[in-house]
Amino acid sequence: MKTILLTAFAAAFPSITYAAPAPAPELAYEIVEGLTTEIGQRLAGTEAEARARDWGLAKLKSLGFSNVRIETYAMPVWVRGTETAEIMSPYPQKLVLAALGNSGATPEAGLTAAVIGFPTLAAFKAAPDASVKGKIVYVSHQMQRTQDGSSYGAFGPVRFGGPSIAAKKGAAAFLIRSVGTDNHRNPHTGVTTWEKGVAPIPAAALSNPDADNLERMLARAPTPVSLHLTLTPKFIGNKTSGNVIAEVPGSDPAAGMIVVGGHLDSWDLGTGAIDDAAGVAITTAAAKRLLDGPKPRRTVRVVWWGSEEVGGFGSDAYFNAHKNEKHALAAESDFGADRVWRVDLKLPDGAKALGERLITALAPLGIAPSRQAAGGGADVEKLVDAGVPVVDLRQDGTRYFDLHHTPDDTLDKIDPVQLAQNVDAWAILINLAANAPEDLMAGQK
Amino acid sequence: MKTILLTAFAAAFPSITYAAPAPAPELAYEIVEGLTTEIGQRLAGTEAEARARDWGLAKLKSLGFSNVRIETYAMPVWVRGTETAEIMSPYPQKLVLAALGNSGATPEAGLTAAVIGFPTLAAFKAAPDASVKGKIVYVSHQMQRTQDGSSYGAFGPVRFGGPSIAAKKGAAAFLIRSVGTDNHRNPHTGVTTWEKGVAPIPAAALSNPDADNLERMLARAPTPVSLHLTLTPKFIGNKTSGNVIAEVPGSDPAAGMIVVGGHLDSWDLGTGAIDDAAGVAITTAAAKRLLDGPKPRRTVRVVWWGSEEVGGFGSDAYFNAHKNEKHALAAESDFGADRVWRVDLKLPDGAKALGERLITALAPLGIAPSRQAAGGGADVEKLVDAGVPVVDLRQDGTRYFDLHHTPDDTLDKIDPVQLAQNVDAWAILINLAANAPEDLMAGQK
Repeated sequence: MKTILLTAFAAAFPSITYAAPAPAPELAYEIVEGLTTEIGQRLAGTEAEARARDWGLAKLKSLGFSNVRIETYAMPVWVRGTETAEIMSPYPQKLVLAALGNSGATPEAGLTAAVIGFPTLAAFKAAPDASVKGKIVYVSHQMQRTQDGSSYGAFGPVRFGGPSIAAKKGAAAFLIRSVGTDNHRNPHTGVTTWEKGVAPIPAAALSNPDADNLERMLARAPTPVSLHLTLTPKFIGNKTSGNVIAEVPGSDPAAGMIVVGGHLDSWDLGTGAIDDAAGVAITTAAAKRLLDGPKPRRTVRVVWWGSEEVGGFGSDAYFNAHKNEKHALAAESDFGADRVWRVDLKLPDGAKALGERLITALAPLGIAPSRQAAGGGADVEKLVDAGVPVVDLRQDGTRYFDLHHTPDDTLDKIDPVQLAQNVDAWAILINLAANAPEDLMAGQK
Repeated sequence: MKTILLTAFAAAFPSITYAAPAPAPELAYEIVEGLTTEIGQRLAGTEAEARARDWGLAKLKSLGFSNVRIETYAMPVWVRGTETAEIMSPYPQKLVLAALGNSGATPEAGLTAAVIGFPTLAAFKAAPDASVKGKIVYVSHQMQRTQDGSSYGAFGPVRFGGPSIAAKKGAAAFLIRSVGTDNHRNPHTGVTTWEKGVAPIPAAALSNPDADNLERMLARAPTPVSLHLTLTPKFIGNKTSGNVIAEVPGSDPAAGMIVVGGHLDSWDLGTGAIDDAAGVAITTAAAKRLLDGPKPRRTVRVVWWGSEEVGGFGSDAYFNAHKNEKHALAAESDFGADRVWRVDLKLPDGAKALGERLITALAPLGIAPSRQAAGGGADVEKLVDAGVPVVDLRQDGTRYFDLHHTPDDTLDKIDPVQLAQNVDAWAILINLAANAPEDLMAGQK
C-alpha cells in the first residue's frame, strides 16, 4: 500500500529526489525526523503531546525495548492566543513578539500604554515603582553567546522572574528582548514563574531585531513611545500529560538501574527538533545499541519525559512514582544536537575508576573531562538531589540559543554528523555504567 | 526638549548605552536607520509609504539638495489579510506561509483540499489538468545561492508565473517553497502577475523549513495530505503613491542629466532595510558628496521611486513625466547593501573613455569590470529601453536571498563597512559621469 502510494507520488517527481539532509539511516535522526514531521510541536498537556506519546510507544515497542509504557499525570495547561504589538506613536509600525509561557492576558481588544525601557534587570529592579506604574516595561538584558550555555543562567532571569517584579511594581505589561543570540524575526518564548500571590500580567518576548528597533525608538523619540499590545493566552484547565518509558533489562537488579532520556514535549512555536526530540533520540539510539548486544549487568531505563518546558511535571511524576526504586546513575540530554565537547562527573568515591574508564573511552570523540561536578538537568534534578550519581555529556551550545524556543527549532537545524557523535558518546556512557562492577549506590539512603 | 527627554531616558539606562551596531556617522547608514526605525515597512500605496515620502522630502531638503519634491500618481493597492495553513491529516500541524502579492483570497473560513506536490515548475506544467483540479498545488523549485543573483531569474518564475498556470489548470490554491536561500521560518513574499483573463486564486509561499516538512509528508503519507488554508488579502482600490526627487544642479543643461536612485517602498513583512532603503541611502549619500563639492557639469537627479515591488508604477510615472528631458545616464541600486564586486557598462561608442576611467577608479575598491552589458533594473528599464546609457554597480548577492521579501529584512542585516564601500563606488560613478567631457547622449533620439 505504502509502496504504491510512494510510487504515485514519485510519478509527480519523475526524476528528482528531494534534497533533504542525507543522513546515514541512523536511528537518532530517524526519531527526530519522525517526531518533527509526523507530530510537529508538542506543547505539554495538549493532544499533540498525546499523539507524540503514542508515536513513542509504538516506536519503542518496535525497537524491541522491554516494559514499554506511558505513565500519565494531570497538569494545568496554558495555551497561546492572539499576540500582536504595534507602535502607535511616534513611529507607527508593528513589532513581532511571542507571549511567555504562563503570561497573563490583555483585554481582547488589547491595551495601549507608554513604554519605559531598561537595559538590565538590575536597572529595572532599582527603578521606583511610580516610574513604571501603568506603563509597558521593556527590559533588554541582552544575552551573549557561550559554548557551555552559562549565559542562560545569567540572562534567563529576565524571563523567569522579571514579569513577577513588573507585576508587583504595577506595570501594565512586561516585554523583554528574547533570551537568544540570533538576529531573526523569531521571538524566543519560554516559561515565566509567578511569585506566590502575584496576579499575572501580560508578558512577552520581542525578537532581537524588534528589540533593537524599539530601543532605537526609545533613545530618540521626541514624545513617549506608545504601544498597543494584544495578548490573549489562557489556562484551559488540568489535562493529561505523561512520560514514555522503556527498558533494556539487566541481569542484576540489586545493582540498580541507569536512567537516561530527554523530554518529549516542546514549545509550540517550532517543531521541537533540537529541544528536545534530539535528546530522546540520542539516548534511545544509544540504549538500542546496548539492547542489541549481550545483556548488561544493570537495567537501562529510557524516559521520554513529558511537560519539561512548562514546569517539570513529568519529572515530578517520575520521581514520585519511582523514588523508592534503585537508581545507580541518572543522565539527561537536553541541550540540542551539536557535539559533546565535555564530560562532567559526579560519582561515589568507590566508583572513581568508572570515571577514569569513561574519560578514556570518550577522548577519541574529542570529549574532554572537566573539573566541574555534574549537576544533571531539569528532568533528573530530583534524583540528583536524592543522591543518585550523575554524568553530564555537555553539548556545544554556541548556536543553541539561536534556535531555543523559537519557530526556527526545526529538523534542518540538526547536523546528522554531530548527532551521530552524541549517540556514540551516550553509547559509551550507557555501556560502561550499565556494566560497571563498582557499587554506584554507595552513600545513597 | 529632545535633550531633556533623552536625558530622562538615559536616567533609566544609567550606565549602559545600547549596543546597536556602531557605524561611523555615515549618511547612508543614517538614512537606512531612519527609514527602518521611524517608518518601518513601506508597502506601496499605503499611508506608511506616504509617511516615508514625507520623511524623504524633509531629509533631502535638510541635506541641501535642489528641486526637492514629491511626484504622485495613483495605483491599485493590495493588502495582506489573515494567512494560516494547517495540515489536517495525516500529520496535523501548522505551517508558516505568506501570501504572494496580488494573491486571491480563500473564503473567510478557509478551504480544505488535498495537496499535490511537484519538484519543479516544469514538472507542474507537464501535469495533466485533471491531476491537479480542485487540489492545492505545491511546487518546490528550490532556489540556489549565487553571487550575481542569476538564480532569481531561474527560480523566480515559480512565483511570477506559477499561480496563473495553476489557476488555468483549475487548482484550488497554489503554494510554493519560498524563493529564497535561508532556513528560517520566515516566508519570502513577492508579487505574482496574473495573466490577462485569469481569475486569481489563493497563492502563498511556505518558509523553507515548512516546505521541507511538507515534502517529507508528501513522500511518506499513507493517505493524501489534507491542508486547511486561509488567505484573506484584498485590493482596497486606487490609492496615492509617489516618487521623491532631489537634484544636484549642474552647469550644462545641454549635456543631460544623470539619474540615480533606489526604491522607497518595501514589502510589508520586514522593514525594507536591504530592499531597498539601502539603495536610496547609497545613491543619496554618494550624490551628497557631489553636492558638497564644486558644481558638476551635469545635473544629478536622485529618485526615491515608489511602488517598485508591486509592479513599477513609480518607474512608469517617472518615465511618462520625464521622458522628454535629456537623460545622459541612468543607474539604480536595488540589490541590498553588500559590497559592489563588479561593474557592467552600456555606454555610447564615443564615451568608451569614460568607461575606462570608471574601471580604473573602481579597481581600488575591489571592483572588477565584466564583459556583460549593463541592463539597469526595474526602475530605470524604460529609460534604458529608450536608449539612455546605463551602468550597473553589481552588489554581492550571496546572502541577499536569505533576506529578500522576508520579515528578516531589518537594519541589523546591514554591514556598515560594506554599505560604505557602496557609497564610495557610487560617488566615483556619479562624479565621473556628471563631469565627463564626452557626449553621453549620442545615438538617443
